[in-house]
Amino acid sequence: MTLPPSCRWSGDHLELLDQRQLPGAVVFMQLRRWQQVAEAISSMAVRGAPAIGIAAAWGVVLAARSGDDLLTAFRGLRASRPTAVNLRWALNRMQAAMGSSASVDVEALTDAAAALQREDCVLTQRLVDHGVSLLAQGCRVLHHCHTGAIATGGVGTALGVIAAAHARGLLRHAWLDETRPRLQGAALSAWELGCLGVPCTVIVDGASGLLMRRGEVDAVMVGCDRVSANGDVANKIGTYNLALVARAHGIPFYVCAPGSSIDRATVDGEAITIEERDAEEITHVRGMDVAAPGAQVWNPAFDITPAHLVTGFITEFGVLRPPYREVLSELPLPNQL
Amino acid sequence: MTLPPSCRWSGDHLELLDQRQLPGAVVFMQLRRWQQVAEAISSMAVRGAPAIGIAAAWGVVLAARSGDDLLTAFRGLRASRPTAVNLRWALNRMQAAMGSSASVDVEALTDAAAALQREDCVLTQRLVDHGVSLLAQGCRVLHHCHTGAIATGGVGTALGVIAAAHARGLLRHAWLDETRPRLQGAALSAWELGCLGVPCTVIVDGASGLLMRRGEVDAVMVGCDRVSANGDVANKIGTYNLALVARAHGIPFYVCAPGSSIDRATVDGEAITIEERDAEEITHVRGMDVAAPGAQVWNPAFDITPAHLVTGFITEFGVLRPPYREVLSELPLPNQL
Repeated sequence: MTLPPSCRWSGDHLELLDQRQLPGAVVFMQLRRWQQVAEAISSMAVRGAPAIGIAAAWGVVLAARSGDDLLTAFRGLRASRPTAVNLRWALNRMQAAMGSSASVDVEALTDAAAALQREDCVLTQRLVDHGVSLLAQGCRVLHHCHTGAIATGGVGTALGVIAAAHARGLLRHAWLDETRPRLQGAALSAWELGCLGVPCTVIVDGASGLLMRRGEVDAVMVGCDRVSANGDVANKIGTYNLALVARAHGIPFYVCAPGSSIDRATVDGEAITIEERDAEEITHVRGMDVAAPGAQVWNPAFDITPAHLVTGFITEFGVLRPPYREVLSELPLPNQL
Repeated sequence: MTLPPSCRWSGDHLELLDQRQLPGAVVFMQLRRWQQVAEAISSMAVRGAPAIGIAAAWGVVLAARSGDDLLTAFRGLRASRPTAVNLRWALNRMQAAMGSSASVDVEALTDAAAALQREDCVLTQRLVDHGVSLLAQGCRVLHHCHTGAIATGGVGTALGVIAAAHARGLLRHAWLDETRPRLQGAALSAWELGCLGVPCTVIVDGASGLLMRRGEVDAVMVGCDRVSANGDVANKIGTYNLALVARAHGIPFYVCAPGSSIDRATVDGEAITIEERDAEEITHVRGMDVAAPGAQVWNPAFDITPAHLVTGFITEFGVLRPPYREVLSELPLPNQL
């Protein structure tokens, strides 16, 4: 089965895949206002750091087409989620495309958003090629959350590496953390790998240690929402635990990080804002109450994995090895400090 | 609110708290045949290592009262769950109570089961007192799964320590791993601490690392289903990951282990059978499908935490410190190798 795109431009509005309805149904939301895009990002109808950057870029186009105040639109889109830096990166690109002219050039903005989406397709493919080069014949790879095609404008990042390893006959098995609270692993990653015919098994997030202890994992591969200047990684909650468990078993822990996720303006992980989301994501599953009535909940959407636990960063520029501060500072990233 | 008992003997049948219906409803199953008890154990209507031992003992009484073949009953009850050793321990106690007489003494068996339940009440209180002695004023304790009163015949083990620390004014806060897949932490532990007025917050299992990194945890306290001769611990899936994460942060990791959970006949953790349960526990939550259709699942109910990650065992005999093989071998455990 062919995977749907995370979004597509219809010519006058944005068709955005509603990831919340997957795997039950493939539904595209028809968005005509930037506010709808901001709402789709904050409600996680669209998720995955690269995909929300692309959606936000199209949000700017919608604002321009509607004659909305662009400064307000930029601010609203930027605030829709705080942790993934791709959002800011994409909006900076759009701001640059506006140029210094007083009038709004809708066509230029449309071209810029389309270019951004096209580039993501090219660079995720490049990233995936670098990632596959790290994997040996017969490898078994453990993955957290969802980082597949629909989380990007192309073939995905970490899950894309796994899918490509399968396509090239290298992969023996993929293990998927179900990834509480939103279960992106069980719902989205298992669905996407299922569509692609990749052999995979879902586990609860707490089972990775037993799996590694039994010698069933050769590498861990995850995505990220932001990499700070020193190589600390903000990614889906549970990533840090997984990195610690991998380290305890001497298993390599790779982070797939497109350049748009690398934020050299943020000195380290402590400086990254971690979004805290609604308690209902934990107390309710698919609308059903699963916790004790009135239970207090703490629901951070991300955690920070310190750089020293990262075996390598897989980027469109190649695989980066420590020392990360130096290596990251030398990357040819446009529009960044 | 007063907590219900995990089970009570009515005089002619067993009233067993159906933990699957908590926290929604407090319902006692009325069991008159040993097969119903075995089914209640394997379906986890009753769970918690000490509680299933007590339930199994009453199962033997029901078999004797019905004139069933006791050998078959012992075998069926013993096989109802493979990992917790308390089950075997309780059945050995019942077998000893039968003596060598050819006729079945129902009264002697009833007395033995009642004694076993009474003793569990006394020894969990003793265990809890030893556990509280480890905690400092203002402590914040992280807990996995559910080990409260209804998991035992008394005040619980690890969760009992937390509740007692609160009652004595020592506890600042309890953090509760929700504990996938069955969510005993979110459902049972949060409910039980809520009933007792203990301040607590539920987190997803993957969030413990971030919490510790932020300095919010002073100690981890868990129960166990079996401790082998060398001090390896079988406990609810996710315990091993938690122990590794605690170790990485230098946070003490305590295991509450009543003598009935200590199995000196099993040389180490590798020799412990780990029960694997239905895929539906992961793919469905409260009957709702949450995973991609056809997703493969691996669902081990327990994992093994190696002895070197355990800061101390809290038992009814006191707190045990390494070297565990020696210390465990010297415990005054009856009916054991």
